[in-house]
Amino acid sequence: MDGGGGEKTQKSGILLLHNALIVTMDPTSRVLRDGALVVDGDRIRALGPSPDLLREFSPLADDVLDLHGRFLLPGFVNTHVHTSQQLGRGIADDVDLMTWLHERIWPYESHMTEEDSYLSTLLCGIELIRSGVTCFAEAGGQHVAGMARAVELLGLRACLVQSIMDSGEGLPANWSVHSTDSCIQSQKELFKKHHNTADGRIRIWFGLRQIMNATDRLLLETRDVAQELNTGIHMHVAEIPYENQLVTSTRGVDHGTATYLEKIGLLRSNLLAAHSVWLNDAEIGFFSNAGVKVSHCPASAMRMLGFAPIKEMLDAGVCVSIGTDGAPSNNRMSMVDEMYLASLINKGREAYIRGTTNPTAVPAETVLKMATVSGAKSVLWDNEIGSLEVGKKADMVIVNPFSWSMVPLHDLISSLVYCMRTENIDSVMCNGQWIMKDQKILNVNEQEVISMAMQASSDLLNRAGITLPKRMNFV
Amino acid sequence: MDGGGGEKTQKSGILLLHNALIVTMDPTSRVLRDGALVVDGDRIRALGPSPDLLREFSPLADDVLDLHGRFLLPGFVNTHVHTSQQLGRGIADDVDLMTWLHERIWPYESHMTEEDSYLSTLLCGIELIRSGVTCFAEAGGQHVAGMARAVELLGLRACLVQSIMDSGEGLPANWSVHSTDSCIQSQKELFKKHHNTADGRIRIWFGLRQIMNATDRLLLETRDVAQELNTGIHMHVAEIPYENQLVTSTRGVDHGTATYLEKIGLLRSNLLAAHSVWLNDAEIGFFSNAGVKVSHCPASAMRMLGFAPIKEMLDAGVCVSIGTDGAPSNNRMSMVDEMYLASLINKGREAYIRGTTNPTAVPAETVLKMATVSGAKSVLWDNEIGSLEVGKKADMVIVNPFSWSMVPLHDLISSLVYCMRTENIDSVMCNGQWIMKDQKILNVNEQEVISMAMQASSDLLNRAGITLPKRMNFV
Repeated sequence: MDGGGGEKTQKSGILLLHNALIVTMDPTSRVLRDGALVVDGDRIRALGPSPDLLREFSPLADDVLDLHGRFLLPGFVNTHVHTSQQLGRGIADDVDLMTWLHERIWPYESHMTEEDSYLSTLLCGIELIRSGVTCFAEAGGQHVAGMARAVELLGLRACLVQSIMDSGEGLPANWSVHSTDSCIQSQKELFKKHHNTADGRIRIWFGLRQIMNATDRLLLETRDVAQELNTGIHMHVAEIPYENQLVTSTRGVDHGTATYLEKIGLLRSNLLAAHSVWLNDAEIGFFSNAGVKVSHCPASAMRMLGFAPIKEMLDAGVCVSIGTDGAPSNNRMSMVDEMYLASLINKGREAYIRGTTNPTAVPAETVLKMATVSGAKSVLWDNEIGSLEVGKKADMVIVNPFSWSMVPLHDLISSLVYCMRTENIDSVMCNGQWIMKDQKILNVNEQEVISMAMQASSDLLNRAGITLPKRMNFV
Repeated sequence: MDGGGGEKTQKSGILLLHNALIVTMDPTSRVLRDGALVVDGDRIRALGPSPDLLREFSPLADDVLDLHGRFLLPGFVNTHVHTSQQLGRGIADDVDLMTWLHERIWPYESHMTEEDSYLSTLLCGIELIRSGVTCFAEAGGQHVAGMARAVELLGLRACLVQSIMDSGEGLPANWSVHSTDSCIQSQKELFKKHHNTADGRIRIWFGLRQIMNATDRLLLETRDVAQELNTGIHMHVAEIPYENQLVTSTRGVDHGTATYLEKIGLLRSNLLAAHSVWLNDAEIGFFSNAGVKVSHCPASAMRMLGFAPIKEMLDAGVCVSIGTDGAPSNNRMSMVDEMYLASLINKGREAYIRGTTNPTAVPAETVLKMATVSGAKSVLWDNEIGSLEVGKKADMVIVNPFSWSMVPLHDLISSLVYCMRTENIDSVMCNGQWIMKDQKILNVNEQEVISMAMQASSDLLNRAGITLPKRMNFV
């Protein structure tokens, strides 16, 4: 459990996988029916028909694995997840938004230690890996060092970020608002210390929690420093109607957060905008022109925020990816479930607009793209991940579709979005290393993480003074 | 695979389960923290604190099982599932409703044999059992004898029904419309042959596919015969706006199907109405006064139909339960997933009505009730199933909550709705018999069913001439 040891010596050499249905997600959407793939170190060396690659690479391979027709896909990229909130799963179900924030989440987050963040990220990471995630964008907690330690140990790839606020109402008493300078300084230090660590699997981004907790100076300096360091900015944007109303009345723009961020040039600064539920058409245009990436979190939106105009964004050419959000906003932290929901919710949303659903909206191919290539673009890493192509990093997932949950297999591509369940994910590789093999998480002791996390979360709730009203009639 | 053998001799005797969190779903919503339950034959003989029951029943019990703090719940009741459609999973993804019906589902259903229905129900039953279902209401296929054979073998409880149509446009050429008389006659014969078979686990209901495929005479005779036989009627009601428009224009009522069924007295005849998405306030009142039961199918509604006024129905006292619908309408056939969706969709739907979500809408307790007691009421079986109470049938589910997907467990009741996954279901008992134990399906060979069902479904698609357009770039 003390992590990180010996990754560089754990060389995988040359691995040949064959007899797979390879869904490459490359620019031509190639699917190889009887495909093979060669991993050399941390990268994909070759990809092609099984007979050809068996002939060429069998003599060189340290390991040859017959996938027996299973599916091979790029690892999924979860573009919005609060890994620090995993210990708080279930603390804020069935409550209104203000109770959620003021009585549950802020007391919880403001009482966390670095060790809590470490355990929370480990527990969350197990769930992410089991759902086929190889890379995630942290949505922002306090203790980046704790997250980084967990990511390094688990073997995942991540863009980590600190949750930054230098203003705003209703914050907990023990959580002093930091000065703008200290907010920027703290992130610069994190960048220096952790960026490009863990064999390059960890990158540091700049964070902005949301506009209601950010002064103009913080927005502008974040924009400038992120550009200077050539990294991304992760921010919650246009989550609720109230946010837009406040921005309109206090910042002199005609709609909301997105319009204001356009005005100050923040949209053009590698922005990953989470949720973005309440955008109007003009703002969708701003996002498209500025190259803003959007993280669509279907379950969390459905539960707390509303229906994001995903079809409209996609039609306008905005890069939309998928996120789970944190455990108290969603509970299930599975990219597999989130793909299923993205398909359903965006078909159903048409009833909201037109009075009737559109079962053809956001088809399976589009959802798969959101979870892979568009995810990679959203985290500014598409030159190395997001698709299975020669020269890219070996981040991938093996799916066993031959179970009661997916058969019969009439439409292979749609089955991945509409039928696949988390338990259909057999194995996961990140950066050329297996991190789950045959459904066993490899780099941590899962039961040990669960029991340590349960204890830590119980202690944390006590410290934070969070008590939940009882349901039903316990005797 | 030839089924049904020897159930009466397979006596379970007295079984004592202890050290469980028992969520009884009884009228006082009792939850026993350290509870025990005694099964005697097919019924619950005792329920109470573990120490008391261990003292009283240990000497009498043939088997004593320590559940180590796992959760014990009533079996879930799936109130709308087309078991015959399981072989068609994936044949109609991302297509509009008319393509779905005319080019995929009707050709599929009209080419099925009784053996296809048997295999389809077996495959579907495996998925139902794995998601904690002990009882289901068939939504209507053609070959009730095939379904009955599968239900008897699997050990499930079911209300089976034939899909009945005596009129309507667009039906396939090889599927002649039956006369009203033959429709009624056929169901009477099925009732005679199968009602109360399989140790009382199978009941036969009367079916009406939907109003666009039913003459007035069929509606009225179904009403009368079902009343005479003291059984229920299962019908798709108010699925799409077009249906209501057609009813309004052809049957002289001011809104739609629900208003018309009220007018002819069909609402008062033990009606289980599936979907019921497009009801107005007056119709919700009719349902409430008439005691109509509604099967809410969240995924299928979201994908194809729209947002049912579930909160309004619950507020008006309508009995609302949960269904999965069939595999080509949903793909995932899990009551566990459907509970999760019911919570999300009905919180999100408020944005549709009021412009902002309501995260307090349809809380966890309500969803659990929909999946258990209200399910039992919907299938007219609540005198024997739907809750864990002394004297009721032993239909129940053991949930293991101590996994990465559910921990930490801060809110035990909400964790069952928001966090539980199908794979948290450990064991399932129906009518006093284990039908899944430690995640192993007991009465059929799962792999054998899968391979036979895959072959049969491929043959069926060939016979029906259904071909699917290719997605992506297969090489």
